[in-house]
Amino acid sequence: MSQHPGVIQSMLSAIRDFGAGSGGSRNIGGSHFQYAELESELAEWHHKEAGLVFPTGYSSNDATLQCLLRVFENCIVFSDEKNHASIINGIRSVPTERQIFRHNDVYHLESLLKQYPFDRPKIIVFESIYSMDGDVGPIAEIIDLAKKYNALTFLDEVHAIGMYGPRGAGIAAALGLADQIDIIQGTMAKAIGVIGGYITGTASMIDVIRSLASGFIFTTSLPPSIVAACLASVRHLKESEEERCLLHAKTEQLRHMLEVRGIQIMPSSTTHVLPVLVGDANKCKTAAAELLHKHRVYLQPINSPTVPVGTERFRINVTPNHTDAHIAHLCESLCTVFDQLNIRPTLAS
Amino acid sequence: MSQHPGVIQSMLSAIRDFGAGSGGSRNIGGSHFQYAELESELAEWHHKEAGLVFPTGYSSNDATLQCLLRVFENCIVFSDEKNHASIINGIRSVPTERQIFRHNDVYHLESLLKQYPFDRPKIIVFESIYSMDGDVGPIAEIIDLAKKYNALTFLDEVHAIGMYGPRGAGIAAALGLADQIDIIQGTMAKAIGVIGGYITGTASMIDVIRSLASGFIFTTSLPPSIVAACLASVRHLKESEEERCLLHAKTEQLRHMLEVRGIQIMPSSTTHVLPVLVGDANKCKTAAAELLHKHRVYLQPINSPTVPVGTERFRINVTPNHTDAHIAHLCESLCTVFDQLNIRPTLAS
Ligand SMILES: Cc1ncc(COP(=O)(O)O)c(C=O)c1O
Ligand SMILES: Cc1ncc(COP(=O)(O)O)c(C=O)c1O
Repeated sequence: MSQHPGVIQSMLSAIRDFGAGSGGSRNIGGSHFQYAELESELAEWHHKEAGLVFPTGYSSNDATLQCLLRVFENCIVFSDEKNHASIINGIRSVPTERQIFRHNDVYHLESLLKQYPFDRPKIIVFESIYSMDGDVGPIAEIIDLAKKYNALTFLDEVHAIGMYGPRGAGIAAALGLADQIDIIQGTMAKAIGVIGGYITGTASMIDVIRSLASGFIFTTSLPPSIVAACLASVRHLKESEEERCLLHAKTEQLRHMLEVRGIQIMPSSTTHVLPVLVGDANKCKTAAAELLHKHRVYLQPINSPTVPVGTERFRINVTPNHTDAHIAHLCESLCTVFDQLNIRPTLAS
Repeated sequence: MSQHPGVIQSMLSAIRDFGAGSGGSRNIGGSHFQYAELESELAEWHHKEAGLVFPTGYSSNDATLQCLLRVFENCIVFSDEKNHASIINGIRSVPTERQIFRHNDVYHLESLLKQYPFDRPKIIVFESIYSMDGDVGPIAEIIDLAKKYNALTFLDEVHAIGMYGPRGAGIAAALGLADQIDIIQGTMAKAIGVIGGYITGTASMIDVIRSLASGFIFTTSLPPSIVAACLASVRHLKESEEERCLLHAKTEQLRHMLEVRGIQIMPSSTTHVLPVLVGDANKCKTAAAELLHKHRVYLQPINSPTVPVGTERFRINVTPNHTDAHIAHLCESLCTVFDQLNIRPTLAS
């Protein structure tokens, strides 16, 4: 835990000043036993004391970061330049000092961290898998820097949970580092397959967010049926390795077949996210339409504002349920359409 | 429509600059036919050209206001002091000029509006029913001011839709004024009984939000099953007057019985929201616990930060399914518990 005691103290006194601390339930209403069970399953997954469920992954990032940056007076936030829009929105919504570090660049991050006094509150925000490039954040190195410079760490595991690590607990858990991250955030809309988002952390940290975060307090909680579905899915993913094995085996199969066919995957990718650079918004859109209407293949064109102009791409993800025939058909169709439109994926990112 | 042509122009050119305009679908994915049907049912309800569904009512206010205030350069926002936290959060997330007007005070609003040049972009944000006081916003007067001072109007109908107006379309529709409001916002978590939020407006306005609002673009859309449930519920509420009649009849019954018993309802209330002032956080919490455990009555204690300290209250809402026996039992229980704890609801708000 990299939290400086003074930092925790300032947060806890913020709760007390506020007269709240709702003692483990929702403020206005909406709690029920499935919520409590789901939150403790999530906390256990990420080696944390407590969890808190939000309507979406977006709101869990946005509301938590806004709240932390308002509660910590004089806090500086250090954010990876490729962080997701929900993180960016949470940060830009508060007029706090911020430093954006170059993607996955721990040297740059350190050069920024060392500019500030040790005692000044700091939060480092990053992701475990970056969804547009398929690369992995330098978790161990960032934890070391957080300790050295007295910063909290906030890790978005949206693209990893359920898919990596022991019992699907994510990349930090795979590295044995989950307990060293202050807040681990996730979504229930990707591998978990339902909808909803969450954070996990120390009991006191979760109580701060529960008691003070506007985007948590002032919205209707997910319906019990949805929460029960999330709970069933999390429990299944903790026990079953089958889907993870299939996901990774099929990813390797697809990666290999694309490479054999000369369709370059962006070299950043070391995960199940296989981005293929098109580099032109119109070509990307046209190719997607051709794929869908002529070849019955649904690939979403990823254009601005999701990625910068000039780096438009397809982001290909296989699922455990895709067959060999599906994979072969995808490769065939991509080759045909790319030839037709003169798309030559390059290696540059 | 109070939009000044220059204002629409500046928004549309913002979309074009941006190169987007996703032509009626979701950017990354997640659209399906139920979405299209639901959005057009909602638009038709509110006498608007188009609708857009968000994961929650909170995010529909927050993301839409953030987006509008970023898109309109130099915009000033005028916000009722009792607006919901989701509105406040959307506004405070953007470093734009803002003016908070005294609750429902059109004279104060006008005195603020007239300080600014006619051509400067303005948005007036208010609610139709205020959930903590049960009173109604001065919709007609605000529309007049918006025309006089060239402002857009944004109306939160969260506590009215499904419950008031022809086919349940809300208070603005009940007054025949829905088509004069630029954006009508609602939730699908209250009368509609599911989860989700939405906005409705002109096609170009909705396209601006669809194409530019971070909180709309970068989150997973509601699952098809949820959207289908919302659609069924909206269609039902448009056709059936039964639930509305029962709601209003039972509200009058409860209001009368409380008054007969000497339990004062806050005089602000002219709707189905019946707030009873307790004025003390601990008494409010204790009374709620007594009611639940001794009398099997679930009333949520409404404490800070939902209402200001010193105005803690119960907000009592009957539903169409409460029986005469339920209502009598509630009144009985309230009397007992209030006597026990020496709670004397006063008329002050
Ligand atoms: C890295 C990352 N964080 C957060 C989110 C938001 O999650 P949700 O879709 O559950 O709102 C997404 C994508 O949707 C994402 O890619
Ligand atoms: C006036 C008002 N607007 C917006 C909301 C947010 O809606 P939702 O619960 O769907 O997020 C609420 C309450 O929840 C509300 O009372």
